[in-house]
Amino acid sequence: MSTYQPPLNDMQFVIEELSSFDALMSIPGFDELDHETVGSILEEAGKLATDVLEPCNAAGDQIGAQIDGDNVIAAPGFGEAYQEFVNGGWPSLAAAPEFGGQGLPALLSFAVDELVNSSNLSFSLCPMLTQAAVEALEIHGSTALKDTYLPNLISGQWTGTMDLTEPQAGSDLAAIRCQALPEGDHYRLKGTKIYISWGDHSMAENIIHMVLARLPDAPDGVRGISLFLVPKFVLNDDGTPGPRNDFKPVSIEHKMGIHGSPTCVLQFGANEGALGYLIGEPNKGLMYMFTMMNNARLKVGLEGLGISERAYQHARAWAFERVQGRPPGGTDTSPIAGHPDVRRMLMLQKSITEAMRVMIYTTAADTDLAQRAPDEDQRAHHQARVDLMVPIVKTWCTELSQEVASLGIQIYGGMGYIEETGATQFYRDARITTIYEGTTGIQAQDFAGRKIIRDSGRAVYALCDEIEDTILQLGAADMNHEADALTQGLASMRISVAWLLDNYADDQFVTNSACYNLLMNCSTVVAAWGLARGALAAQRRLKNKADGTRYLQGKISTARFFFDHVLPRALSFGQSACAASDTVMGLADDQF
Amino acid sequence: MSTYQPPLNDMQFVIEELSSFDALMSIPGFDELDHETVGSILEEAGKLATDVLEPCNAAGDQIGAQIDGDNVIAAPGFGEAYQEFVNGGWPSLAAAPEFGGQGLPALLSFAVDELVNSSNLSFSLCPMLTQAAVEALEIHGSTALKDTYLPNLISGQWTGTMDLTEPQAGSDLAAIRCQALPEGDHYRLKGTKIYISWGDHSMAENIIHMVLARLPDAPDGVRGISLFLVPKFVLNDDGTPGPRNDFKPVSIEHKMGIHGSPTCVLQFGANEGALGYLIGEPNKGLMYMFTMMNNARLKVGLEGLGISERAYQHARAWAFERVQGRPPGGTDTSPIAGHPDVRRMLMLQKSITEAMRVMIYTTAADTDLAQRAPDEDQRAHHQARVDLMVPIVKTWCTELSQEVASLGIQIYGGMGYIEETGATQFYRDARITTIYEGTTGIQAQDFAGRKIIRDSGRAVYALCDEIEDTILQLGAADMNHEADALTQGLASMRISVAWLLDNYADDQFVTNSACYNLLMNCSTVVAAWGLARGALAAQRRLKNKADGTRYLQGKISTARFFFDHVLPRALSFGQSACAASDTVMGLADDQF
Repeated sequence: MSTYQPPLNDMQFVIEELSSFDALMSIPGFDELDHETVGSILEEAGKLATDVLEPCNAAGDQIGAQIDGDNVIAAPGFGEAYQEFVNGGWPSLAAAPEFGGQGLPALLSFAVDELVNSSNLSFSLCPMLTQAAVEALEIHGSTALKDTYLPNLISGQWTGTMDLTEPQAGSDLAAIRCQALPEGDHYRLKGTKIYISWGDHSMAENIIHMVLARLPDAPDGVRGISLFLVPKFVLNDDGTPGPRNDFKPVSIEHKMGIHGSPTCVLQFGANEGALGYLIGEPNKGLMYMFTMMNNARLKVGLEGLGISERAYQHARAWAFERVQGRPPGGTDTSPIAGHPDVRRMLMLQKSITEAMRVMIYTTAADTDLAQRAPDEDQRAHHQARVDLMVPIVKTWCTELSQEVASLGIQIYGGMGYIEETGATQFYRDARITTIYEGTTGIQAQDFAGRKIIRDSGRAVYALCDEIEDTILQLGAADMNHEADALTQGLASMRISVAWLLDNYADDQFVTNSACYNLLMNCSTVVAAWGLARGALAAQRRLKNKADGTRYLQGKISTARFFFDHVLPRALSFGQSACAASDTVMGLADDQF
Repeated sequence: MSTYQPPLNDMQFVIEELSSFDALMSIPGFDELDHETVGSILEEAGKLATDVLEPCNAAGDQIGAQIDGDNVIAAPGFGEAYQEFVNGGWPSLAAAPEFGGQGLPALLSFAVDELVNSSNLSFSLCPMLTQAAVEALEIHGSTALKDTYLPNLISGQWTGTMDLTEPQAGSDLAAIRCQALPEGDHYRLKGTKIYISWGDHSMAENIIHMVLARLPDAPDGVRGISLFLVPKFVLNDDGTPGPRNDFKPVSIEHKMGIHGSPTCVLQFGANEGALGYLIGEPNKGLMYMFTMMNNARLKVGLEGLGISERAYQHARAWAFERVQGRPPGGTDTSPIAGHPDVRRMLMLQKSITEAMRVMIYTTAADTDLAQRAPDEDQRAHHQARVDLMVPIVKTWCTELSQEVASLGIQIYGGMGYIEETGATQFYRDARITTIYEGTTGIQAQDFAGRKIIRDSGRAVYALCDEIEDTILQLGAADMNHEADALTQGLASMRISVAWLLDNYADDQFVTNSACYNLLMNCSTVVAAWGLARGALAAQRRLKNKADGTRYLQGKISTARFFFDHVLPRALSFGQSACAASDTVMGLADDQF
């Protein structure tokens, strides 16, 4: 039984009220967009999710992708679903019109992707990685490469992958060894890449791999890595896929979750070497990767939201169906949703999920404004905000998705532990999201080092000032309880940030021993801020006698719950963030 | 590769320093026990764990138990391991000598069971449930039943199960429908029981089921449930297993974890009815179950410890082996354990696991003292402490085991998500522990309602006073940082408890909406208290120039870490515990 219903109301509320949508609509290129268009795009995407992608989700988990000789066979139903996805024009939503894209705001493509993620996370990784390949090519590729490869990647006729990791090079890409030897206008690649999501399949005519490798004379470390475009099928002169290139999947990983997404080990160059084309300049591959990383990390944060919404809806259906015990004051047995502790768990799932959505959608809109806002100062302001928000979105939404999916199992009780119930899949699928595209630890180092210390806290303090504004608005709206709680949270955020800035220079371990708790401290406050803005918007609508009174009151109650049940965690993260680094580094190796 | 090493030093430290061991040794019956004996028992149990139980753990997960017709086939190697377990005399450690038991303290059997849990959780459930059946019979069974069944259950020649749950009766046992019809000196049972761990297998000659069912004239609800002993093979006149009784496993569940433990659906009475014997008096079955529940819940808490220790050791091995990146100030690449954020995760795993051990072992010793302490006041004191600690141990150790196992995956990075690495098994296995033997929500209601409100907080305030004493000792030992942190934690615990006592009578939703956060608040403080006592003991030993200086200093550093990185959570749980119940109950059904 599928229980997934596209949360279109919640999505539109965030888009219309909290995501600078009016500002976006006034930008040339986006100015034909209006609320109705957005509504109908989301409605269509919702049908794609429920009618096409969700129906093959369980087979993706239970049967999964398989490897057969040199080919990966996608899970049952995935190939057909992908064709419908392509035929509907979904891959090209936000891509550049000059290569066949529809040129819509990233905000809208994030919203559509939420639906794709919720209905079938394993499936969603394929277009998500194609999108990253498109970006790499769009920004750094030569005109010839773009003309040759972009249109088919953007249409989804071909898919793309990112090939970074090697057995000895995970978080540390400096250790990459894959070799690229020049040969005329192209290169021959040899080496092994692992963890290549959708590294092979037959759902599309061709697969275009973006591969990090070293030129023969490249310097050691990260400054000697170049980026190559390596097609599965080398193109014929007419641009159609020709003979198979010299690389193949040698195995797919047996993972705890996302079984529908084949995670390949790719062996390049067993014979003459895999034919590849250099993207951009030599030795700048890692820098090019970083330009895509913001979006990829935001998209993984979005996976956290997608799973959370799905896990919440799944548990909610059970909680209102399963009759068990008498709630306090009740005279008869009741659905378990009537029990306060079950309701607490549902409220946690709901409020956390809604906070994720505000956080992600507003950041997606910031990416649009960073590129398209009319004046340069505005663009710079939004870019700084995006840079700051990337580790927050990636970490908070993926870390909290573990909790939301786990609560889903807990609400089901014993039934939740049985695979057929479906709650376990969300839990197992979610677990990868805090790891790939940079682990939580990597995000936390990025946050503390690049995003706070590097600009002496300017971007984060600007964010604090905006939160301060919201606190004033809460006070003016008679939401004093929320104002007080957010004041307390914001104070702890300011203290943690100041503590880092005061101490990092004197103690080399401070940044990295404090960064996780600092990031979680700030993220929790930012999450609460988003719901506060939502509650204020709901109150404004109520005052204006807008439709949906009970819906809007629900927004206010949900925010209130979050302020009492999640925001207080900021205080404990803050305390831990300000602990001396020798509590972390206190044991010598032999004392473990 | 197995990485499990029995943590004998840590276990003995807790037993000798923190678990009233000297008091236990002075009790008649336990007075032949000494430190050396304990040491050699644990050493032997350690060999059982590493040489017998651990080697079949992976097969238990990957192949698992299977059903074949009317019989469950245990996972490969489990049958042989069980024979060695029985031959070594391990099932009978703490059982009554009059029925062949060894009469050792529960404390010691808990320590041995920790090793069993760590090495093979699925396996451990079989003797754990047998132990529960033994207790039920020992306390409530007739002499005839005891003489007939106890010796073989205690020796492990037969195993036991608990058959409570039915499809419509999970947390709400009032809904039990299974019927028992009288027939001469016995009964005939008909009905379906689900979630019966080790409900069938061929590792032992017979399986003795403890089944909750209703007599024909029984009142509705919990006051109409009786307890029956139902053997798989009805005994011949000479006491040997005879013909198969009229019930059988009709399926085993496909679970996310503990695959080596067959979770059976049992169908009773397809023909003449399953032959069973009433235990104790009619309609008191649920009360009898409750007498066993304390121990069973503590044992599930112990599972949390077992998994945590294993997951920690597993991640530690990887963290000191995997070379990746340069840590701050380092000039060369280093094992990832050198990176502060990885070290933070290892410290979390280590300190949380050690806190679990103190919490559980001290409570196990309290169960011994509650039964055997020389005077009645002492016995009552220890029983009150046990009753209070049961939901704390069950909840905190199982909830935190999710985190410790999850950190295990995180430390492995991408590798951790691959099933072959082994980290996922601990994560999947752990997930059931917050559900069975009473979910966390059930524990929390028990804690708030029966353990705090019912005695107006007397037991919990007595605990607070003991924590207060420890704070004074910390101050006297110049551990002012720890004293301050524990003072802050204890204050929040007193506030939460007082808030509950002040408010529950006026608002029917308060108890159940606050109970989870209250329980987590108190548990976190109690966990810190245990490590504080450990740090004080380590400091005493250091002053006395005991052996193991670096080990003892490590205990102090580990406690310090916990005070900075885990204890602060008590504050946020405390804040949430004192939130108004209408934050939890704020949404109407249609607003979800």
